[in-house]
Amino acid sequence: MISAIEEVTGVIAPPDEQATLQAVLRLNNLTKPPGSLGQLEALAVRLAGISVTPQPSYTKRMVVVMAADHGVCSEGISAFPQEVTLQMAHNFLSGGAAVNVLARQAGAEVKFVDIGINGDLTHPDLIDRKVRLGTDNMAQGPAMNRDDALRAILVGVKVAQDAVSSGTEIFVTGEMGIGNTTASAAILCVLGNVSPETAVGRGTGITDERLLHKIAVVERALNVNQPEAADALDVLSKVGGLEIAGLTGLILGAAASRTPIILDGFISGAAALVAKALAPESTAYMIASHVSGEQGHKLMLERLGLEPLLNLGLRLGEGTGGVLSLHLIEAVCRIMSEMATFDSAGVSGAEQK
Amino acid sequence: MISAIEEVTGVIAPPDEQATLQAVLRLNNLTKPPGSLGQLEALAVRLAGISVTPQPSYTKRMVVVMAADHGVCSEGISAFPQEVTLQMAHNFLSGGAAVNVLARQAGAEVKFVDIGINGDLTHPDLIDRKVRLGTDNMAQGPAMNRDDALRAILVGVKVAQDAVSSGTEIFVTGEMGIGNTTASAAILCVLGNVSPETAVGRGTGITDERLLHKIAVVERALNVNQPEAADALDVLSKVGGLEIAGLTGLILGAAASRTPIILDGFISGAAALVAKALAPESTAYMIASHVSGEQGHKLMLERLGLEPLLNLGLRLGEGTGGVLSLHLIEAVCRIMSEMATFDSAGVSGAEQK
Repeated sequence: MISAIEEVTGVIAPPDEQATLQAVLRLNNLTKPPGSLGQLEALAVRLAGISVTPQPSYTKRMVVVMAADHGVCSEGISAFPQEVTLQMAHNFLSGGAAVNVLARQAGAEVKFVDIGINGDLTHPDLIDRKVRLGTDNMAQGPAMNRDDALRAILVGVKVAQDAVSSGTEIFVTGEMGIGNTTASAAILCVLGNVSPETAVGRGTGITDERLLHKIAVVERALNVNQPEAADALDVLSKVGGLEIAGLTGLILGAAASRTPIILDGFISGAAALVAKALAPESTAYMIASHVSGEQGHKLMLERLGLEPLLNLGLRLGEGTGGVLSLHLIEAVCRIMSEMATFDSAGVSGAEQK
Repeated sequence: MISAIEEVTGVIAPPDEQATLQAVLRLNNLTKPPGSLGQLEALAVRLAGISVTPQPSYTKRMVVVMAADHGVCSEGISAFPQEVTLQMAHNFLSGGAAVNVLARQAGAEVKFVDIGINGDLTHPDLIDRKVRLGTDNMAQGPAMNRDDALRAILVGVKVAQDAVSSGTEIFVTGEMGIGNTTASAAILCVLGNVSPETAVGRGTGITDERLLHKIAVVERALNVNQPEAADALDVLSKVGGLEIAGLTGLILGAAASRTPIILDGFISGAAALVAKALAPESTAYMIASHVSGEQGHKLMLERLGLEPLLNLGLRLGEGTGGVLSLHLIEAVCRIMSEMATFDSAGVSGAEQK
């Protein structure tokens, strides 16, 4: 299975240099002071490199929500009971969750993938790719074995490949899984080389008391499992999660097919850290939609070398921040395609002095 | 004329308390951890108070671009020549400017108002409300007299009133005027009680050398005119601008008709400072779309007591940041109207511990 992943990571190409340069030149000829669209200009340049054109457009948009359960929930690390993962799955599938609402606004399709929910789920729109019934409790041993982690990554790769074959032009990462900020914090500790105090945050909103407990649980998981920082698959299997592995695969699959992938929040960031460890060049295809209210996310984005577009104190996950940022991507595309140039509009340029 | 303005400011009501409370209750019953939508939740609560319903919607959206020239341009404070105001006016009217592009995306109508361009302009879509051919050079005397400033404010009030009569449900402030960051910085100095070094920024992108010169010009304008901080009309007429006055009127007119008004960047912020001085309760109707790359804007928003939604390093003006934020307003409206509640979706709430 590892060779199947290497096949994917092996074809990830660097951004296109010529399109990148063309985007810079075009931006400087549009009727606006150079640089005055700030971060949107940087985004325009990156998208040009990814999509090999200075005037890209992304009509077919997909949010992939990977859902799974976490054995570490039995340690009482979340404000919500584990059953909420399954309950919320029904909510996603009936279109009532926040990400559904925002995806409708953004003209994006939501694909909901059961990659490891601890319970039975049937629905005509469900993509059933259950690898196992949730992870084991990482505070007592590995969350899963290496083969399960590999299988979950390949689920994500396949979802990306199938979607691209069907015309998807841009992805947003989404997830659901009670307990998954705990697993993500553990991944950040190892791959980002930071302490649990720095990496662990309040997730869905826990009290001070429970936060201290959550930090202690992550410390225990790291001590019990001794994940190897140089081996991202070891980290992912010992202290990760199935939806995190699935998103890692989605990111790698998107990058391999030159498709931009918008990262949502903290859990997506953990998946991106694993993707970066497996294929450093995959970061060129990642767009950080926002920096969340979850402690540790800012640091995670720094480790990924990504600048977030939004900073709204979101800490909901699901893909909500990612979907919100699609609007800015579209704004950039329209700026590059629809704005007048100094020549076409007969406007004088800046006098430098 | 002052009595005409007092008629407007006199009817500005505080936000509705009952709708505000209903919005808080609804937010806490939606299928998400309480507070997890961060700043969007605060925005939902504010919009409820403004529009007297926990589930507002804003279909008819208008960007009002007020354009005027500035006599202070003869001091060489901008990277662009004064003629660019008129040249860009044609670009706005033919739909090629950045704000046109982004307004099309946001489903917003652009109204372009000539309130003081120093030149002749005719176009079927132009709203010709020219008060005078630009301001005088504030570094040598008052930019305009008090009556001109009052007339320009009333232009803005009337534009707001007419638009609301025709069904406009939300406004975005926009502007064009080479030299207007210099006037806005001078207003910030007086009404925000800060030094020119703190208030003056690089505008469209000037060199270090020209920045020092711009600071000196603002110092000179303040020394020559001695504007009275306690008299906002004195400040506006002596060191302001016609488009700034027009936007002040637009803000007051919007607030008087309980219509939310989205502030764009630094120039809009200067207009908002004047509006706040004339009618402190008007700030309840202002939404800060973004904090710009222009030095002093952050401080301006602090003086207004507003939290910006975006921080993208924009420094283009025109209303671009304002129009970009319409997407977040719509997201909030959809969240309040379309998301499932814990009861309706059968999802368990948080266990507090």
